Amino acid sequence: MTDDAERLSRLNVPALDGILGRPFKVLDDGFVRVIDYMGTDESIVQAARVSYGRGTKKVSEDRGLIRYLLRHRHTTPFEMCELKLHLRVPMDCWRQWIRHRTANVNEYSTRYSIAIDATQRTPAGAWRKQAPGNKQGSEGFLDARTGRALSEKENEIQDTARAVYQERLDAGVSREQARKDLPLSTYTEAYWKIDLHNLLRFLSLRMDERAQEEIRAYAGVIGQEIVRRWCPIVWEAFLDYQMENVTLSRLEIGIVGALVRGDEREAIELARGFGWLKTDDKGLKSNRERSELEEKLARLALPIPWKK
Amino acid sequence: MTDDAERLSRLNVPALDGILGRPFKVLDDGFVRVIDYMGTDESIVQAARVSYGRGTKKVSEDRGLIRYLLRHRHTTPFEMCELKLHLRVPMDCWRQWIRHRTANVNEYSTRYSIAIDATQRTPAGAWRKQAPGNKQGSEGFLDARTGRALSEKENEIQDTARAVYQERLDAGVSREQARKDLPLSTYTEAYWKIDLHNLLRFLSLRMDERAQEEIRAYAGVIGQEIVRRWCPIVWEAFLDYQMENVTLSRLEIGIVGALVRGDEREAIELARGFGWLKTDDKGLKSNRERSELEEKLARLALPIPWKK
Amino acid sequence: MTDDAERLSRLNVPALDGILGRPFKVLDDGFVRVIDYMGTDESIVQAARVSYGRGTKKVSEDRGLIRYLLRHRHTTPFEMCELKLHLRVPMDCWRQWIRHRTANVNEYSTRYSIAIDATQRTPAGAWRKQAPGNKQGSEGFLDARTGRALSEKENEIQDTARAVYQERLDAGVSREQARKDLPLSTYTEAYWKIDLHNLLRFLSLRMDERAQEEIRAYAGVIGQEIVRRWCPIVWEAFLDYQMENVTLSRLEIGIVGALVRGDEREAIELARGFGWLKTDDKGLKSNRERSELEEKLARLALPIPWKK
Amino acid sequence: MTDDAERLSRLNVPALDGILGRPFKVLDDGFVRVIDYMGTDESIVQAARVSYGRGTKKVSEDRGLIRYLLRHRHTTPFEMCELKLHLRVPMDCWRQWIRHRTANVNEYSTRYSIAIDATQRTPAGAWRKQAPGNKQGSEGFLDARTGRALSEKENEIQDTARAVYQERLDAGVSREQARKDLPLSTYTEAYWKIDLHNLLRFLSLRMDERAQEEIRAYAGVIGQEIVRRWCPIVWEAFLDYQMENVTLSRLEIGIVGALVRGDEREAIELARGFGWLKTDDKGLKSNRERSELEEKLARLALPIPWKK
Repeated sequence: MTDDAERLSRLNVPALDGILGRPFKVLDDGFVRVIDYMGTDESIVQAARVSYGRGTKKVSEDRGLIRYLLRHRHTTPFEMCELKLHLRVPMDCWRQWIRHRTANVNEYSTRYSIAIDATQRTPAGAWRKQAPGNKQGSEGFLDARTGRALSEKENEIQDTARAVYQERLDAGVSREQARKDLPLSTYTEAYWKIDLHNLLRFLSLRMDERAQEEIRAYAGVIGQEIVRRWCPIVWEAFLDYQMENVTLSRLEIGIVGALVRGDEREAIELARGFGWLKTDDKGLKSNRERSELEEKLARLALPIPWKK
Repeated sequence: MTDDAERLSRLNVPALDGILGRPFKVLDDGFVRVIDYMGTDESIVQAARVSYGRGTKKVSEDRGLIRYLLRHRHTTPFEMCELKLHLRVPMDCWRQWIRHRTANVNEYSTRYSIAIDATQRTPAGAWRKQAPGNKQGSEGFLDARTGRALSEKENEIQDTARAVYQERLDAGVSREQARKDLPLSTYTEAYWKIDLHNLLRFLSLRMDERAQEEIRAYAGVIGQEIVRRWCPIVWEAFLDYQMENVTLSRLEIGIVGALVRGDEREAIELARGFGWLKTDDKGLKSNRERSELEEKLARLALPIPWKK
Repeated sequence: MTDDAERLSRLNVPALDGILGRPFKVLDDGFVRVIDYMGTDESIVQAARVSYGRGTKKVSEDRGLIRYLLRHRHTTPFEMCELKLHLRVPMDCWRQWIRHRTANVNEYSTRYSIAIDATQRTPAGAWRKQAPGNKQGSEGFLDARTGRALSEKENEIQDTARAVYQERLDAGVSREQARKDLPLSTYTEAYWKIDLHNLLRFLSLRMDERAQEEIRAYAGVIGQEIVRRWCPIVWEAFLDYQMENVTLSRLEIGIVGALVRGDEREAIELARGFGWLKTDDKGLKSNRERSELEEKLARLALPIPWKK
Repeated sequence: MTDDAERLSRLNVPALDGILGRPFKVLDDGFVRVIDYMGTDESIVQAARVSYGRGTKKVSEDRGLIRYLLRHRHTTPFEMCELKLHLRVPMDCWRQWIRHRTANVNEYSTRYSIAIDATQRTPAGAWRKQAPGNKQGSEGFLDARTGRALSEKENEIQDTARAVYQERLDAGVSREQARKDLPLSTYTEAYWKIDLHNLLRFLSLRMDERAQEEIRAYAGVIGQEIVRRWCPIVWEAFLDYQMENVTLSRLEIGIVGALVRGDEREAIELARGFGWLKTDDKGLKSNRERSELEEKLARLALPIPWKK
């Protein structure tokens, strides 16, 4: 350890300091605000250099090192950064959020305090239809008239549920029991603290198009407004290597290779062998793994031989 | 490694095998059932002996070893046992449960499937009053007439919420959105897998009298019906050392020592110095740490000098 | 819950029961043996069906479901399987192993017991040369004569270290202190218990060609001899989707797309823009990200335009 | 959320800023230095108030709240503080340290870099004798002459081991393999990041008198020099409630109660029933649980009835 290592001051990020405490609005009454943070891009390099020795030191090399670490799943240096957020989020959404276990959490207690008097309300134009192909997704919106009726009904049920809650409290019922029929749309608040590695994993799952719209809205804000300011080099690498990448399985590599060589016949044979080209009287039966490959082929500018 | 180590069969527990899959009822429509388990009392000894060498081998020594490990927080051998449960529990209760992070969980998905059509209903005589002294607790019950009115209202709001949910589904709303106003009392189901060390921690917090009645009901069943059968020696040690113990802080040790010597005056002086004997015109002001000590003095058959 | 859910027996895997307790040799004196397990392929399906409802039930669908879950990072059902191993491994290797935190561990204690009298010895032909390109790797072997000299020296230093250890014990030094100069090559033993999801992550990192040879030897045995028997469908999916796949970053997708369209010029322009084609007087400078792409292009049967 | 919540600056602790980066020496060549931190006493209160509402605000109440949280195992607010240390520690000691899994770690890589050229050396007067009663402890020191001989031998073996390491490197052996016979006393370095709750758990186990002297030295410095400056209210509460407390088991409570009532006979009967008073021809046989109770009785000023 050289002498200059003996004095330190904390790393700070002016771009993040500028928004500390400022709520970013999400949904109709939710928010995300940064309470505190530890470290930044530079801390990742600093920690990696404990492992790798201290030779490389140029700024241009820092970017390369961070990108290398992320690409090769050297995850531990990313754990050296920590973020603390204050969230306001509907309980329904929080139920998904809390499944990310490697985080520290303090949630608003409705045993101790009266429940927050706010629920997520759905505007008439925002009722999403069940996706036909994806059992756990939605696709498109209901028409405005149906939507209006549903939104009115929603206002009613939410108001009634709150009135019932209040009646119970007025009658002397304990808070811990009175809350039992509050709707899942009720807002809660929490402090949520997580290291950058686990935060990126959260973002990669919750910014994904298969995630539910509500939690995607939060994840998008955390990524775009907060991580981008906090650790800009990491953010760029994360998009390049984890969000906008394509992974080909062993099976898909075979087909892609055949297509690259121009051998569509072999590509079709392979797909048939994998059971992806079964037909019924309406033609090709739907097959999820084939659909996934078709999307990838499109991104790689390759033809879909069985679609000709 | 001796030769006899080379052949093994899995440890099994006949007392637990006898109840495998059998639901133990909890609350009005909940249950807990054992799906699978790994290990038993003997596995803890087996793992500890990897650490401690293999000298001691008598059955009577096994009990002593397990009790020693538990008493001295040698927690890792207890992690060598694993339990998998199938639970049915109101979401309100599940919100507390899921905070125990060191567990594996698969929960019923109301994105993918229609929500379970059952809610926890509160009988007329079961409405608990807010505790006056403990902001997050309840104490005693409301009178029957008030209870009846509240229960009727509850039936109504739960039925209405379900009808609203069904209307949305019928209108084509996606399941992931339709569920947003279901009440917290709606039942969910989950597979929950946890090692014995973390399970004991769960039990010590959730069997505690300060835990909410609903989750205490589940914890009691898991402890009394399942762990007691599965690892009887651990269960006994757990009660002796963790559930029915008394911990005295540095401050309390001073007071207890004074009382043991018969020096009530010094005991009072010490308590006053800690700020536990403040008075107003009604006498001694309430003080949580003093109340806690008073309970402990009672268990140790010691007098409470400031109460004379 | 239907009636037939009410009776269960534990899932068992005859192929794994057949090797329970049997040590698979690794390195010169190490081993891995299965002590116990919970669940199998079927348990993953069982847990996923708590989430997804219980419609699909055919065996052929089980395989598809497991492959879907693994492909789409639905990791929680894989946590429902648990494996307990008994390991004998050099401390040097164990230092890497223990960094996988989500596991339960009981290690042989050299505070409590006399250290295991065995060290990993390197045969004359097994001394690996430092890799020139990869600072943390090895490549090829030293010649036999040098190897013999090194192995003799190794025997000496290991024997001396053990003698010093024994002298200390004989002089009455505490075991916890006497051990301090044992070589890292000393064998230790441990019980190691881990869920299948975290085990697959361990395997994907430690079966990788960049992992150190010693831990790769263990990982290979755990994968090929144990997981393959225990959960054959998972094992196949793991190879197809995680071990033998190819991931293309956003940058690489651009280049691959250009090559697929036959536009080598654009491919080169893109690579140059990413800084991958810098030259010095000896030609192209080495660039790690470009080398990685070149390997992928080869697997996809695509040309490397800058190599012509 | 009130308006004043919308602007924040990071909490900082001048007393800790004053020592940032400064190494505290431990053992002969080890150190601990603070690299960064997040939060302080105040952050615990802040997080707890998200849970408990925001009524109480006086400084005197902060102390009471922190002490209440610690006493009652409300651990989550303590997770809101995070500490990052740079350590230099012998590998032998690090092997114990790393068993604390809930922490983030980047260790110096001897695959990538040449091993640190320093080993922990034992002075002639510091060779500890094996404890007779405690198989995993030490007690007292060897005489100076024996110590000198052992220390000389240690110098030799450490120097030889280093020379062998250097020879291997010079012969072209890969670093990952050359290191295999380095002694456990070799120093390593790491960045170690942990939240305050888990740090307190580390300290309570590693400051304990049963912990090995080397790791106790580190734990003592972290506690006394760092945590005491960083979160002084927590530190005081930790000593009062976790380090200097006494826990009585159900069995011990019975005996203490009898002694308080002056009924030594019943106390003896109880102890005999627990199997703590077995005798052989030399008198009372040693019994660990009885010895533990005897220490507690002494602290509570109670007599030991079977010792009269």
